[in-house]
Amino acid sequence: MSDKHSVGVVSPQRAHFAEPIQLASGATLAAYDLVYETYGRLNADRSNAVLVCHALSGSHHVAGHYADNPKNVGWWDNLVGPGKPLDTDKFFVVGVNNLGGCYGSTGPGSINPATGKPYGADFPVVTVEDWVESQARLADRLGINQWAAIIGGSLGGMQALQWSLEYPERVRHALVIASAPKLTAQNIAFNEVARQAILTDPDFHGGNYYEHGVVPARGLRLARMVGHITYLSDDQMGEKFGRQLREGVLKYNYDVDFEIESYLRYQGDKFAGFFDANTYLITTKALDYFDPARDFGGDLKAALARASAKFLLVSFTTDWRFAPERSREMVYALLHNNREVSYAEIDCNAGHDSFLLDDAQYHAVMGAYLHNIAV
Amino acid sequence: MSDKHSVGVVSPQRAHFAEPIQLASGATLAAYDLVYETYGRLNADRSNAVLVCHALSGSHHVAGHYADNPKNVGWWDNLVGPGKPLDTDKFFVVGVNNLGGCYGSTGPGSINPATGKPYGADFPVVTVEDWVESQARLADRLGINQWAAIIGGSLGGMQALQWSLEYPERVRHALVIASAPKLTAQNIAFNEVARQAILTDPDFHGGNYYEHGVVPARGLRLARMVGHITYLSDDQMGEKFGRQLREGVLKYNYDVDFEIESYLRYQGDKFAGFFDANTYLITTKALDYFDPARDFGGDLKAALARASAKFLLVSFTTDWRFAPERSREMVYALLHNNREVSYAEIDCNAGHDSFLLDDAQYHAVMGAYLHNIAV
Repeated sequence: MSDKHSVGVVSPQRAHFAEPIQLASGATLAAYDLVYETYGRLNADRSNAVLVCHALSGSHHVAGHYADNPKNVGWWDNLVGPGKPLDTDKFFVVGVNNLGGCYGSTGPGSINPATGKPYGADFPVVTVEDWVESQARLADRLGINQWAAIIGGSLGGMQALQWSLEYPERVRHALVIASAPKLTAQNIAFNEVARQAILTDPDFHGGNYYEHGVVPARGLRLARMVGHITYLSDDQMGEKFGRQLREGVLKYNYDVDFEIESYLRYQGDKFAGFFDANTYLITTKALDYFDPARDFGGDLKAALARASAKFLLVSFTTDWRFAPERSREMVYALLHNNREVSYAEIDCNAGHDSFLLDDAQYHAVMGAYLHNIAV
Repeated sequence: MSDKHSVGVVSPQRAHFAEPIQLASGATLAAYDLVYETYGRLNADRSNAVLVCHALSGSHHVAGHYADNPKNVGWWDNLVGPGKPLDTDKFFVVGVNNLGGCYGSTGPGSINPATGKPYGADFPVVTVEDWVESQARLADRLGINQWAAIIGGSLGGMQALQWSLEYPERVRHALVIASAPKLTAQNIAFNEVARQAILTDPDFHGGNYYEHGVVPARGLRLARMVGHITYLSDDQMGEKFGRQLREGVLKYNYDVDFEIESYLRYQGDKFAGFFDANTYLITTKALDYFDPARDFGGDLKAALARASAKFLLVSFTTDWRFAPERSREMVYALLHNNREVSYAEIDCNAGHDSFLLDDAQYHAVMGAYLHNIAV
């Protein structure tokens, strides 16, 4: 993509919410900040706004780059920009860092006004419902009564779905990509390994590591390594790394033998260098807890009856973390309720991470759907 | 199974080997012990001996129980005994703890005669080839020139296969269960996460934790947790645990919410309480390194041309760690060499762990094959 398809230089903005927010856990935050970015222009009748919800490690920085750091490109820049599938010449796009995050919105690393110290372990567990509630207040602040679309992949897709249930009248289209109506036992199990890696790291200090001048980097690194395996497909790992040796010979020790080991260590180290461990814990819990059918005796059809939006669901054939089968469950439940649903199962070998990639078929589907949205 | 189908009370035996063994790594062990058990009686012409090779966490204690600990039943007791598929009325069965193990054979926790301290980090990495070599010496010691059969599941299956390549004339039948001719990148990746959990545990002390009076229990626990997820199938986890809550309510903290979390923590804690972390490291390396086609330019057909045994291969439909596809690769390569091969793909929902279970179809196949072996 040439520069004319980039939103260019962007700046994060900050909204402060002084009204207390009651969370699903029963806890209350007296006040909070949300950091967000916007691309494109809100039209006169405020009908072209699109909210992009982020997944586990994402942020409000969805597209473009920063003036002082041109290499820091938004995580969904291949999708969002002038002439791109989510066309900023047509839409006003909003990216927001979720509550509990570590990119500027109020989270466990923020100063707790009640103590003057970082929240740490005192930061409450937040849920997908809480995020939707906090995002709805941001929408109010921005004067957006109804989103033309809410889009998210993975955990972001859960937020798009939850929006359609919690505020049906505020969502015209929900794009739920590589997502699921709830995690499986295996999904929860992988999250639990990640959490235990963090929680049992001696540098975790019960979540109050900020005061000790350390971070639980070992645990966070392991969490990312195991997570990363589940984001890729077995096939793709085989094609990309196979059994290729880093230095051509077996070393008979515990240094790197295989390229895949080097790759995983690199991914783990990089992540542990910037992400907040408490945010990781909170976010995996939000994933585990999400289950809109819970209050309907497990009946997803009943749970989705509230939605009035039109839907696009997309899944990827090699995604074993959020398999196509899980998207189909949502499709069936929505069709049962006579909702308008488009569904695409994209043949892409990149596993769960496919939703972040510039796959031609995938982007064609997204572009066509978004093109047809009237604003 | 009633008692008459048990081998009853058994006792481990110890064989000392004073001849140095040259390992694949280039290192040499000046001497070593192997601990083993035997069930049934070696017949007069020594033609009824069966070697059972163990997988990652197994041992020489394959069947029966100990007089002073009746609850310590062998890990493959459902398969091995009088009238069982591996019938000890017919066969003389040998189980052996592998070199580098932690159940009595010489391993990283053993005293290094050169220093008077535990080997720890000085214990060399050993390979499947090394195990076969050390087991061959045990066979010599027991007067077994040729095994009627060598049987193993998972990593044990790799040993059975390697025996058929390294000593074709000493193996009449190789039973390779839930195994693979080499690990995939994804398999190696999971092993690497497990190793990194151990290696970065502050209690690991570079492998010399014995001298510090600690064990890297946190790392070993995580290693087991992540391993355990891969031993079970997604389906079975869903059926057994699903999203069942331990105490009926979400806790909004990092205690146990879901049953699967409780189960994994229990498995991790239990394992970390008795298994040796260095043995875990060594054993995962043996898994990663196994690749008999490596010396044949990756051509498995060429690699297996040396084998002259008859083969039974068994895989399980829901085993995603050692998928049926991996067994089929071996079947095709053996058939290409005009070897006699039986292959069964068992419909069992228990994932990789199926090979340890008393599945009727599986045991029927094993029993029928073993029944037909002439001794």
